[in-house]
Amino acid sequence: MSILDGIHSPEDVKKLDMAQLDELCAELRREITDSVLRTGGHLASSLGAVEIIVALHRVFSTPKDKIIFDVGHQSYAHKLLTGRRDTFDTLRRFGGLSGFPDPAESEHDAFRVGHASTSVSAALGMARARTLKGEDRNIVALLGDGALTGGLAYEALTDAGQSRERLIVILNDNEMSIAHNVGGVEQMLGRLRLRPGYMRAKDKFRAATSRGRIGHAVYRVVHGSKQFLKSLLIRSNIFEDMGFTYLGPVDGHDVKNLCRLLELSKSYNGPVLIHAVTVKGRGYGPAENDPEKYHSVSPAGSAKPGMSYSRAFGDALVELAREDSRICAITAAMESGTGLEKFAREFPERFFDVGIAEEHAMTMAAGLSAAGMKPVFAVYSTFAQRSYDELLHDVALQKLPVVIAVDRAGLVGEDGATHHGVFDPGFLAQAPGIRVYCPANAAETREYLRLAFDCGAPCAIRYPRGGEGRFTGISHGGAEVVRRGSDVTVAAYGHMLSNALDAADILEKRGVSAEIVKINTLVPLDTETVFASAGRTGCLVVAEDCCAEGSAGQRLAAKAACAGERFEIKLLNLGNRFCEHGPVSELERYYGIDGEGIAEVALWQK
Amino acid sequence: MSILDGIHSPEDVKKLDMAQLDELCAELRREITDSVLRTGGHLASSLGAVEIIVALHRVFSTPKDKIIFDVGHQSYAHKLLTGRRDTFDTLRRFGGLSGFPDPAESEHDAFRVGHASTSVSAALGMARARTLKGEDRNIVALLGDGALTGGLAYEALTDAGQSRERLIVILNDNEMSIAHNVGGVEQMLGRLRLRPGYMRAKDKFRAATSRGRIGHAVYRVVHGSKQFLKSLLIRSNIFEDMGFTYLGPVDGHDVKNLCRLLELSKSYNGPVLIHAVTVKGRGYGPAENDPEKYHSVSPAGSAKPGMSYSRAFGDALVELAREDSRICAITAAMESGTGLEKFAREFPERFFDVGIAEEHAMTMAAGLSAAGMKPVFAVYSTFAQRSYDELLHDVALQKLPVVIAVDRAGLVGEDGATHHGVFDPGFLAQAPGIRVYCPANAAETREYLRLAFDCGAPCAIRYPRGGEGRFTGISHGGAEVVRRGSDVTVAAYGHMLSNALDAADILEKRGVSAEIVKINTLVPLDTETVFASAGRTGCLVVAEDCCAEGSAGQRLAAKAACAGERFEIKLLNLGNRFCEHGPVSELERYYGIDGEGIAEVALWQK
Repeated sequence: MSILDGIHSPEDVKKLDMAQLDELCAELRREITDSVLRTGGHLASSLGAVEIIVALHRVFSTPKDKIIFDVGHQSYAHKLLTGRRDTFDTLRRFGGLSGFPDPAESEHDAFRVGHASTSVSAALGMARARTLKGEDRNIVALLGDGALTGGLAYEALTDAGQSRERLIVILNDNEMSIAHNVGGVEQMLGRLRLRPGYMRAKDKFRAATSRGRIGHAVYRVVHGSKQFLKSLLIRSNIFEDMGFTYLGPVDGHDVKNLCRLLELSKSYNGPVLIHAVTVKGRGYGPAENDPEKYHSVSPAGSAKPGMSYSRAFGDALVELAREDSRICAITAAMESGTGLEKFAREFPERFFDVGIAEEHAMTMAAGLSAAGMKPVFAVYSTFAQRSYDELLHDVALQKLPVVIAVDRAGLVGEDGATHHGVFDPGFLAQAPGIRVYCPANAAETREYLRLAFDCGAPCAIRYPRGGEGRFTGISHGGAEVVRRGSDVTVAAYGHMLSNALDAADILEKRGVSAEIVKINTLVPLDTETVFASAGRTGCLVVAEDCCAEGSAGQRLAAKAACAGERFEIKLLNLGNRFCEHGPVSELERYYGIDGEGIAEVALWQK
Repeated sequence: MSILDGIHSPEDVKKLDMAQLDELCAELRREITDSVLRTGGHLASSLGAVEIIVALHRVFSTPKDKIIFDVGHQSYAHKLLTGRRDTFDTLRRFGGLSGFPDPAESEHDAFRVGHASTSVSAALGMARARTLKGEDRNIVALLGDGALTGGLAYEALTDAGQSRERLIVILNDNEMSIAHNVGGVEQMLGRLRLRPGYMRAKDKFRAATSRGRIGHAVYRVVHGSKQFLKSLLIRSNIFEDMGFTYLGPVDGHDVKNLCRLLELSKSYNGPVLIHAVTVKGRGYGPAENDPEKYHSVSPAGSAKPGMSYSRAFGDALVELAREDSRICAITAAMESGTGLEKFAREFPERFFDVGIAEEHAMTMAAGLSAAGMKPVFAVYSTFAQRSYDELLHDVALQKLPVVIAVDRAGLVGEDGATHHGVFDPGFLAQAPGIRVYCPANAAETREYLRLAFDCGAPCAIRYPRGGEGRFTGISHGGAEVVRRGSDVTVAAYGHMLSNALDAADILEKRGVSAEIVKINTLVPLDTETVFASAGRTGCLVVAEDCCAEGSAGQRLAAKAACAGERFEIKLLNLGNRFCEHGPVSELERYYGIDGEGIAEVALWQK
């Protein structure tokens, strides 16, 4: 029987001998690797955080104590230790375990997460609540160095440092976020990592804390001669300036030392930051050697799509940039995900990876544009939410020609609720003067990108994760009838056009002739074309993979009402809710926006 | 003739003797004080930045060189020096000068601004464009210490520091943003300000640079023996860690020294940060003594409104907090503006001012809520845009009962386009599960706040700047007919209800009987009540002070269309554009959303 077999709750971790912890870590690592290579998931970061998570469950007691993950990629060992080992093979499947922490899934998950840089804010709120309510619990935030590049983390750290709240922040510094960190943060951490005396100080600290009973001795050291420890371990740095007691850098794979440090931190009456240096992919050779590749692993046997929109965008951008030296590209730590690798290689001087900093990316794009460049900011729809104000205040207000390449629009699949790109049709449309293009294949992505660069106004081009759909060719203008029919009009755009065409096939078999209107620009909406078709057929169905509020359907229906149009209108979208995780095709079926679902709505009589 | 009389463009500043600069600053200060006490405007911060601005125009040449302001409050001296002295008495009036920089107003204004922390991002974009285009121009960002608390500034500084771009950031450290800075930023700056040797280093630097020809000597010092200068002036700190060459702290009111430093910085081939310490309100006794009071000055003779919504909110919150110890309040550097002063005094331990950090404020509120507290985040509508993603991802996703008190909703008046709260009806509605209350007077503000705290879900309560309107009493439920009529239904909420009632009076005189439906909750919309009324009258006018996309009218019209309602629908709102500045009543007339405007729409035949 393995050690892991005996772990049914975090309390079991506390029953182990110290010596067994290393073996537990090794077992967790094997279990994660075996399982994730099969199911797919975030492998490299989860492997890097195993010792930290074991040490956390050794020292703290969830759910009383709160562990708040950042992003949550790294939580797999935590899931295995908190009663979810039996269901771990359902990871990221529809109805299965989430790839991220979720309080609805386990009482040991303190806060739901998926976007970066939220953990310290959430933890500080919980710490303040704890203090106000006079409770006795520990609050720990586990922050990656990638998340540290986000302004939200900085806002939270400065507030937390000054708060004097009892709070532990573990900075899991794996020297690489999804791609690699950039900018001053990396420089600052690099300086901390490399400072002389780091190893020596660590050794001394170990020697000091290994004599006698650890907790007590360490407590006396800290409180009795704080200055001594400070001079030994804690040198002035940004975290100290913010008000944190800084411990580190320490080896994030030395589980025993981590336990000691956490015990020490627990006894400290104020905010503590532990800087743990780890290796992404630790313990699995291929992932250690190429952690970016193993950041997110596809399920075994899953087929790669052909031409993805991201790649079509990236290729088209390179072509355009060869012709126009004003074109430059910005990413917020998603170079590979957004298809910008080729651009970055060919035009390194025109490529800017700003780290996980979507706010800055958007305003910096505005600055580039104001000075005559043609910037494109390629960003996942869900992360573009972070730059909503900057889109309005810095881009749209000045009518600056910035192109926003909104990748991963619509349902994204296995990453689930925190990652679906379902809000952008609404919030993009709010930006005065914007144009929003919705290509339905690679050729259109290329063509619309060219139009976006040429239009001289703020522009977005919105496309989904994954590969091309059914529609071939390039449609021009605001909207176009791409399939003639007489009984009902189905309007759709982007990825959903394929489902609309499927619906037309299904309806045809049932004797209903559907006319399909392809919407090319979400903003402005070509109501004329859509309403002309609906006027002929008498019924308009607008099918979308976004939330109801701000949907094109809502906007079309409102215009129809104000214009006194008399055709029937049915809106099909994802409603006002967050959607679950799972393969996109399953989700589409579940939420009724696949071909069958669209056909059903079209047939449905009021 | 004064010196200022001879300044017609920034080039004239360069023709003055060094000795005349102090007198120019004194004249600017008198001019600003005299004028702003009459017109109203942001006095204290503008007075604090006079020497910095004079030095900038002495050393740099706009529009070739770019000066990018942050927030823009402090730009008045800049306006006076760049050909806008003749029109300065139209400041913030409808059709007059903007209270903020605006490239449409002058070629010397490089970037439009109003929200905080954007300047370094914009400047970095411009610096990168300059370098890519092989141009020769200087880029300067003028950043306040308040703006430094925003995560966006941190994202930009870390990127800029690492970029090696030639770029000058002036940190105008007046030790107080609108209220006072909070958190670790203040601590960090405090340490920089107080470090031993500051005065000595400054004196030595002066001595070093005053010998011989300044520019050349300084250049040699910097490039010839960089280490010497570093040890003299530049000590390791957060800005150095980020990659900036740090110069300071220096006296931000010593115009000659500022000129020398700017000349020095100009010659440096990389990012430089000049830390200038200034006094807010400098040179005007009352403003120096109470800079918060003189942050924003009302025009002479303007009457104070009676009970403002902000005060009604603040008073009600204190009452509720006396009964419920779980209630706590968060502000992002707007304690006074959001009416939280009383709460802060009575419940200091439950009051959190996080600085200009709306992202963190929202996620911290989520943390407080997840741990059982009842947080309210009071924020201006326009600044709430900064926490859009956090509202979705951290609050709504977990259905956490956080109350967002959305102050300054609708047109805010003199601050203009960057500050109007016209997007929140759309973006709040996108948050799944949210309730949005719209009180129309102080009593409703109190009542709806109570409901918001009780509803156990994410909630917003939305109210305008200024005082109460015509409607008295408290309306319950989602919507209510508050005035009976038979010819047309006008639906309105919050502040706009007064205008709707005005319209009903106007219509009555013209023989048209208008029924007024008061919408109490923007989300969910009580379509039943609204449609029942419109069904009776045959025509629905929805009148709002927000942008078209995401408006309640759009949502109502869409629902009417899908439900097959047959009454006429007319939407009246601010359209898809940014609105100008000026008194709210003038703006309402101009944009046609006052009583007359509503009446006209109601009368208008399709």
